[in-house]
Amino acid sequence: MSVRLAHNCYGKHRVRVSKVRRPRQAPSNQERHEFVEAAVDVELEGDFDAAFTEGDNRLVVATDTCKNTVYALAKDHDLETIESFGLAVAEHFLERYTHVTLCRVSLTQTVWDRLGDSPHGFVARDRATPTAVVTLERDAEPEVIAGVAKLLIAKTTESGFTDFHRDEFRTLADTDDRILATELTATWVYRGAGAGSGGDFIGNRRAVTSALLTTFVDHYSRSVQETLYRMAEAALDACPEADEITLAMPNKHHLLAKVVPEGTPNDNEVFVVTDEPFGYITATVKR
Amino acid sequence: MSVRLAHNCYGKHRVRVSKVRRPRQAPSNQERHEFVEAAVDVELEGDFDAAFTEGDNRLVVATDTCKNTVYALAKDHDLETIESFGLAVAEHFLERYTHVTLCRVSLTQTVWDRLGDSPHGFVARDRATPTAVVTLERDAEPEVIAGVAKLLIAKTTESGFTDFHRDEFRTLADTDDRILATELTATWVYRGAGAGSGGDFIGNRRAVTSALLTTFVDHYSRSVQETLYRMAEAALDACPEADEITLAMPNKHHLLAKVVPEGTPNDNEVFVVTDEPFGYITATVKR
Amino acid sequence: MSVRLAHNCYGKHRVRVSKVRRPRQAPSNQERHEFVEAAVDVELEGDFDAAFTEGDNRLVVATDTCKNTVYALAKDHDLETIESFGLAVAEHFLERYTHVTLCRVSLTQTVWDRLGDSPHGFVARDRATPTAVVTLERDAEPEVIAGVAKLLIAKTTESGFTDFHRDEFRTLADTDDRILATELTATWVYRGAGAGSGGDFIGNRRAVTSALLTTFVDHYSRSVQETLYRMAEAALDACPEADEITLAMPNKHHLLAKVVPEGTPNDNEVFVVTDEPFGYITATVKR
Amino acid sequence: MSVRLAHNCYGKHRVRVSKVRRPRQAPSNQERHEFVEAAVDVELEGDFDAAFTEGDNRLVVATDTCKNTVYALAKDHDLETIESFGLAVAEHFLERYTHVTLCRVSLTQTVWDRLGDSPHGFVARDRATPTAVVTLERDAEPEVIAGVAKLLIAKTTESGFTDFHRDEFRTLADTDDRILATELTATWVYRGAGAGSGGDFIGNRRAVTSALLTTFVDHYSRSVQETLYRMAEAALDACPEADEITLAMPNKHHLLAKVVPEGTPNDNEVFVVTDEPFGYITATVKR
Repeated sequence: MSVRLAHNCYGKHRVRVSKVRRPRQAPSNQERHEFVEAAVDVELEGDFDAAFTEGDNRLVVATDTCKNTVYALAKDHDLETIESFGLAVAEHFLERYTHVTLCRVSLTQTVWDRLGDSPHGFVARDRATPTAVVTLERDAEPEVIAGVAKLLIAKTTESGFTDFHRDEFRTLADTDDRILATELTATWVYRGAGAGSGGDFIGNRRAVTSALLTTFVDHYSRSVQETLYRMAEAALDACPEADEITLAMPNKHHLLAKVVPEGTPNDNEVFVVTDEPFGYITATVKR
Repeated sequence: MSVRLAHNCYGKHRVRVSKVRRPRQAPSNQERHEFVEAAVDVELEGDFDAAFTEGDNRLVVATDTCKNTVYALAKDHDLETIESFGLAVAEHFLERYTHVTLCRVSLTQTVWDRLGDSPHGFVARDRATPTAVVTLERDAEPEVIAGVAKLLIAKTTESGFTDFHRDEFRTLADTDDRILATELTATWVYRGAGAGSGGDFIGNRRAVTSALLTTFVDHYSRSVQETLYRMAEAALDACPEADEITLAMPNKHHLLAKVVPEGTPNDNEVFVVTDEPFGYITATVKR
Repeated sequence: MSVRLAHNCYGKHRVRVSKVRRPRQAPSNQERHEFVEAAVDVELEGDFDAAFTEGDNRLVVATDTCKNTVYALAKDHDLETIESFGLAVAEHFLERYTHVTLCRVSLTQTVWDRLGDSPHGFVARDRATPTAVVTLERDAEPEVIAGVAKLLIAKTTESGFTDFHRDEFRTLADTDDRILATELTATWVYRGAGAGSGGDFIGNRRAVTSALLTTFVDHYSRSVQETLYRMAEAALDACPEADEITLAMPNKHHLLAKVVPEGTPNDNEVFVVTDEPFGYITATVKR
Repeated sequence: MSVRLAHNCYGKHRVRVSKVRRPRQAPSNQERHEFVEAAVDVELEGDFDAAFTEGDNRLVVATDTCKNTVYALAKDHDLETIESFGLAVAEHFLERYTHVTLCRVSLTQTVWDRLGDSPHGFVARDRATPTAVVTLERDAEPEVIAGVAKLLIAKTTESGFTDFHRDEFRTLADTDDRILATELTATWVYRGAGAGSGGDFIGNRRAVTSALLTTFVDHYSRSVQETLYRMAEAALDACPEADEITLAMPNKHHLLAKVVPEGTPNDNEVFVVTDEPFGYITATVKR
C-alpha cells in the first residue's frame, strides 16, 4: 500500500515555568520582587520525516531538550509578556536549528498580582487567563495571536432575542429582557511589524480587553451575534496593530426558573444556571 | 444475614441559582441591579429508613422537590450571603417536614463584581470561591461553616525549610530561601448565636480573609506548618464569632530549575511549576 | 488570645508510581510482564505540634521524604493490590518513626489490562477506578477501606418512583418506568484480621463488585434508596470479611425528552441526559 | 473604521441524548433493550451575516431550535453509530433550511455495554471514547471523520530512543529500553461514497482500532514518531474507505524512579508517572 506522511509536528507541552525578577539591590527579603508564571507548549515542524518513516532520530531535537530550552531561555528573558517570551522561544528554535522550518509556541499565563504592598507576596486572583500563540515560519512574516480565555461576564438586562426563524421545531418564545452571560474567549492577530518583539503587547492587551468589556454593556443586545460583532469591531478600533479578532461567546444560560407553588410570579428575578447544552456563537472580524 | 442501615442521607446537589435584585424604581434598563449566583447542595436526614429497607417512599421528599424548594426560597431571599441563604434553606426543611431531623446545605458562590459602573453589567473575576456549609439539627445549636477555596497565593522569599528529620530516605536539602505557594482552603466555624441569621457573615468573611493574607507574608516562614498555624491564629483573632478554623495548604511546588548548559547558575530566578506530587498540610485550630 | 492546635496532619499526595513486574527469566523483550500503576496519598499524624507552634522541624519527616519512601517501598513490593501496598506503606511509617501515631494511605489504581496476548503491551480500559484507604494507628486495629469509584451503570426499565411525599413544592409525577442511571461509588471496610496483609483483597473485591452489579438489575427498583440498600446487603453477604459498606449513588438523570413538533409521542425512547442538578443518595450498611 | 465579518458559525453544543431501542415485542421488563448515548454539537454556517451586522434575526435558527431538532431526529433514528446519526442531523439542516450552506455535527459517544446478560442492565465500562465529526457543505462531498479519544495504552519494553540530536541543551541520555505510554487520539477521514449513510462505520471502526492496537506492540519502537507512523499505515491498510488518518500520541511519561537509599538499583522496575510536561507527537498520513 502506498501512503505518505502528509503533515507532522511535535514538541513539548505544558512546560510550566515561573520566574522571580529580583532587583539585586538589597538583601533578598527587602527586594521588591516581580513574579510571573506561564505554561508553554512548543511545537516544531521541519525536516523530521525520517524519524517517522525510517526511525532515524538524528535530526530530532528531543522534546526533553525543548523543555530544557524553555527553562534556559527564561533565565535570560524577563517574561514581562507571554507574547514576547513566545517570540524569544520561537526565534531560538528557528535560529538554532536550520532544519526547523516552523516553530509554534502556545502560552497561558497565571497572573500574579501583588498582595497588598508586600515586596514578595502575591495572589493569583483572576479567573480569566491571558493566552498567546506565536508562530514563526522561516521566510514568512511573524504571527502573534494574543488572547484571553475564561472571561466570565454577564448583563442582567438590555438583552433580548426576538423575531428569529419560526417553524415547527421552534419552541423558544421571543423575549426582550433576558440575562446574557458568556465565558468569553478572544484572540486577536498581530502580523508583520506589529508582531515583532517591539510590539506594545501590554498596552494593546489592555486596550482590547477594555473595548470588549465596555462594548458588552453599552447597547441593547438583539442577539449574542450582534453583541459579539460590536465587541469585535470596538476591539479592532482600539488596537490598530491587530489585523483581525475572533470571539467565541458560549451562551452560559440563566433560564427563568419556574417557581413553586405553581403560579408564583417570577419577574426576571430567579434563574436556573446551566452549563449544557449551551449556545455557541463565534465569528472572526477583519479589517 | 443480619445487616442494618447505619446511616443514610440524600438530597439534591448542584442546584445552581442566580438572582437579580432589582430595585423596581425605574425602567428595567435604568435600574441598578445586583447579581448573585450560588450552587447549592441540600442533604436531608430523618425518618427515611423505610425507603431504603421497605421501598416505602411516603416520607421521601423527592430530590426534585428539594430543587424546587431552593428556587422558591431564592424568590423571597436576597441571597446577600451564601451563609444566610443556607440558613434559610435549612430552616425551611426542618420547619416544614417534622420527620426531617437534620438538614445540611452546602453552597459555593460565583462572585459577580460590577463591570465598571454599569448598572447591569457584571464580571466574575475571582478564581477564589466563597463556600458555606450550614447544618441544622433539630434541638441542636446551628452550625455555619464559612470558607474560601482555591485562594492561590505565593511568597517568593522569606520562606525556608531546615533541620527536618534526617535519615536514609531523605534527599531534600535544607534551604533558607524558597518559593512558598499554596492554593489555600480555609473553613471557619460559627456556632450558637454566631451562626444565627443575624450573623455578620460579610464583615467576618472580610476580616478572616484579610487576616489570612496579611499573616501569610508578615514573617519568615520556617515551614508551611508554622505559617499555617500563624494564619489560623490571626484569623481567629480577627473574628471572635468563629470557634475554630481549619486550613489546608497544599504545597504548589515551584522547584528550582536546572538550567542548561550544565553549570549555568540559577540564583532563585527560574522555577519548574508542578501540580503533583504535592505536599499537603492541614490543621484545625480552636479557641 | 488563647488558641490551641486541635488537629493536624500532613504528608504527600499524588505520588504516582508504576511498576513493571519482570520475571527475569528471558531477554527483556520475551519476558511476560505485569504492569501496575497507582496514585498514593500518604498522611501522617503524631508528635508534630512543635512544627506548627514553634517552627521546630526536627521531628518532621519531609513530604519529599514521604514521596521517596513510596518509590523505595514499591521496589520491594509487588503492588499486586493497592490494599496490600497501602498496608506496606503505612506499616513502614509506623515502624520506622516512633513519633508517628497514625498513618493513612489513600490509593487509586489505574488498571492496566493485557493488550491481546502481548507479553508487554497493555491498555487501561476501565473508567471505573479501584480505591483503597489504609489507616494504621499505633495500638489499634488496622483498617482497610477498599472501594470502587466512577462505576457508571444504568437500567433502562424495572425502575420507578411513586407515592413519595406530596405537597405544594412537589411537581414531579409518579412514574413506574424510568431510566435509573448512577455513577456508583462504593467503599467497604475490613477491620482486624480481615484488614491484615493476608487478606484476600482480590477475591473480595471481585465478590463485592459482582454482587453490586448483579443486584442492581435483579429487581424492580422502587427508588434509588431501595436499590442501594439491596446492593449493600448483597455485597456484605458476598464478602464476610467486610464489616460495613457505604454506597453513594448520584442520580445521573435521563429525563424524558419533549419531542417536537408538539404532540409527538415519546414512549420512553428519547432522553435528555443531564449532570446537574442531580439527586444524591448515600447510605452505610453494617452487620 | 472599516471592518468586515470574515467568518461566523453558531449552533448548540453539548446536546446530550440517550435512546432506548425497545423491540416492543414483550412487556417492558422482558424486552431486550439496546441503550445508546451521545453528546452532540451542531454548528451552522450560511446566510447569517445580518444577525451579526444588523441585529436582524429573521434567518437565525435559534440554538434552542437546534437542540429540539437533535431530540426530534433521535426519535426516528436508531443511533446505531454516531457517524450515521451525525449524517442524519447534518442532512436535516441542509435540507430544511436553504440558507444554511454548511452543517458540522461533532459527536462523542458513551458506550453502554450489556451488564451480564441482563435485558435492560448496562455498564459504561470504557475510558476510551468514540468520536465523529460530520461536515456537510452544500454541493460538496460529504465528509465524515471518525475517531477515538482517550485510548490509554502502554508497552513496558520494546521501546527506545537513541541517536537523537545532541547539543548543549540536551540532557536526556540514549535508552534502548523504556516504557512507552500514550493516550491516543485517532481520527480518520471518510469522503465521498465512503462517507455516505451506507458506510460500514461499525466494521471500519473495529478494523482501524484493531490495527492501531496490534501495530503498537508488534515492533521495537525507535521513537514515538516511528510507532505512530506504523500505526497510521496499518490503520489505512485495514480500512480502504478511509483517505487519511491523524494520530496524536502525547507521551505519558513513566520516568525511571531514583530509589533511596542512594545507590539502590532500579532495573526498569519502578517508575514515576507524570502528566506534565509531556511530549506531544502528531502526524497525518494519507494515501
